[in-house]
Amino acid sequence: MKQHFELIPKVNKEMGRQVSEYINTLTKPIGSLGRLEELAIELAEMKNEAFPSVTPPGVLVFAADHGITDEGVSAYPKAVTEQMVRNFLNGGAAINVFSRQIGALLEVIDIGVANDIEHESLINKKIRYGTGNFYREDAMSREEAEQAIEVGYQQGLQIIKKGAQCLILGEMGIGNTSSSSAILAVLSNRDMSLLVGKGTGISDETLVHKAEIIKQALERRNPNPNDPIDIVAKVGGLEIAGIAGAMLAAASKRAPILVDGFICTVAALIAKSISPGVDDYMIVTHQSIEPGHQIALSLLGKKPIIDLGLRLGEGTGAAISHSIIQSSTLMLKEMATFHSAGISKE
Amino acid sequence: MKQHFELIPKVNKEMGRQVSEYINTLTKPIGSLGRLEELAIELAEMKNEAFPSVTPPGVLVFAADHGITDEGVSAYPKAVTEQMVRNFLNGGAAINVFSRQIGALLEVIDIGVANDIEHESLINKKIRYGTGNFYREDAMSREEAEQAIEVGYQQGLQIIKKGAQCLILGEMGIGNTSSSSAILAVLSNRDMSLLVGKGTGISDETLVHKAEIIKQALERRNPNPNDPIDIVAKVGGLEIAGIAGAMLAAASKRAPILVDGFICTVAALIAKSISPGVDDYMIVTHQSIEPGHQIALSLLGKKPIIDLGLRLGEGTGAAISHSIIQSSTLMLKEMATFHSAGISKE
Repeated sequence: MKQHFELIPKVNKEMGRQVSEYINTLTKPIGSLGRLEELAIELAEMKNEAFPSVTPPGVLVFAADHGITDEGVSAYPKAVTEQMVRNFLNGGAAINVFSRQIGALLEVIDIGVANDIEHESLINKKIRYGTGNFYREDAMSREEAEQAIEVGYQQGLQIIKKGAQCLILGEMGIGNTSSSSAILAVLSNRDMSLLVGKGTGISDETLVHKAEIIKQALERRNPNPNDPIDIVAKVGGLEIAGIAGAMLAAASKRAPILVDGFICTVAALIAKSISPGVDDYMIVTHQSIEPGHQIALSLLGKKPIIDLGLRLGEGTGAAISHSIIQSSTLMLKEMATFHSAGISKE
Repeated sequence: MKQHFELIPKVNKEMGRQVSEYINTLTKPIGSLGRLEELAIELAEMKNEAFPSVTPPGVLVFAADHGITDEGVSAYPKAVTEQMVRNFLNGGAAINVFSRQIGALLEVIDIGVANDIEHESLINKKIRYGTGNFYREDAMSREEAEQAIEVGYQQGLQIIKKGAQCLILGEMGIGNTSSSSAILAVLSNRDMSLLVGKGTGISDETLVHKAEIIKQALERRNPNPNDPIDIVAKVGGLEIAGIAGAMLAAASKRAPILVDGFICTVAALIAKSISPGVDDYMIVTHQSIEPGHQIALSLLGKKPIIDLGLRLGEGTGAAISHSIIQSSTLMLKEMATFHSAGISKE
């Protein structure tokens, strides 16, 4: 993984300072566009451009299955992962709708679905047929974890080469909140009861069971908190590793990363653990109602843009937030200055 | 004003119930799109349609001057109102940028700017050359207040006739946070210190002065809290009255009203006082940092969609939020159902 660490450039704070000064010349009271002004400055620093663009965005949805579902931790059967991938490929899922709305390049990657899927639009990068059940065995080998990150990295590079100006990462994988809670427990050292949530909608009873299973699984697997590859291999998910890899690719190309909810934020923490500095390219888009998300966000040190009670995943929260981020870039590019508009500044 | 009261139809709660059931058949965990699902239901109730649309939106920006600026309550000179209207007409203001982003029909109405402005795109409905200084005299006559509401009502009807599927109301008027704080004080009966803010950016010292001027002005004018026309005439603004009128027009045509920040929310309270039921057609789009906004929102009984530290006005917060509201309608129109996609529901 070392090469990915070295490839991430520093964000350009001097460019941010110049853009900040320029914003103060635009025809509006100073600071009156609040968070939009901050976003414009951050994007300029990331892209090293005075007038950064975030269109078109690239959306990569990584799909994989999770052996942990054998322990009854999910509201939906494992088969739904494959069925939802087909829904993505047919354009009927929420992420398809919101991707069309924002004019995104959308790609769906099978990085580990339990069944074979034939479809001309599917990018088949399957590493294995779902992870092992991490309550009973390692989720995957160390080599598989590294492969999954590399797949994500290459897909990230490719969609940027196709013209994506920022990256939205999405996921589909029944059981992946369990894997995410396990990873977060290792990284945060917080009590499991604070880190598990109802995912796609389990009962209170199943929630208690889910927390207990993950807690016991962690005692059995005992991942090394200082070794992100070990964490992914022992309790991770293939799609989570893929997302982390794509984030590393985005940062290496100065492409802003629009971080979605709980699972993506956990993937972001893995990416940061692999390569500190990648988080300088991250904008957290929304506050999920999954309880662990708040803790993951505090570890990442980021504040979300919107809080709409979303808990769907797929990258939908990031896609919905994209237009607000775009507004910040259009403010920079299109607003008149006090001077050009001939307006009294004070 | 009585006729406007009688023209507002009831929202269709039964349509909302049907749409709510339909949302539960879409390919996502139940409730997982949070606020977007609520918005879709509200829009269906307002428009009495199973698949409501909010595109194109109509943006009406009402501009007027305020005599109260003679008391030194504003950060900018009065001349900025006219200069900013010219900026709107030349396409360089923030509301122009965000209106283009969302494909809005945008119209700028001079309902009381202190100077004459000649421009082919300007809708000239000037009622008087700015309001009177309400610290020393009534802002306008009762007849002028009714005329201003009627101008807004007619402009609202016209833009809906041109195809606007929802209305965003914006304002420009140096001094209009002072007028808004005065109106809110009458309607809320709260202490002035809670209702005034820094507007476009006055100093702490000027803020104390602003609060004192408005407090004394209210003692002198003594508007009748149960008579919205009396409130507008004594301490109101022509653009605030225009916005209230446009809101009444929108509701009469079942067009959703995207309420912007502090000044628009105060105008919404005036509209509600004229015609209870108009607020059923309102969606509050953002939380302004102007302190009175929270109190105005609690009187209106609405929760904003975004909170980005905005305090620009012009309708910008509503314009920025439009894409999120559009996302909710696209969710309804374009997502596959579990049945159509062949997905196991449980």
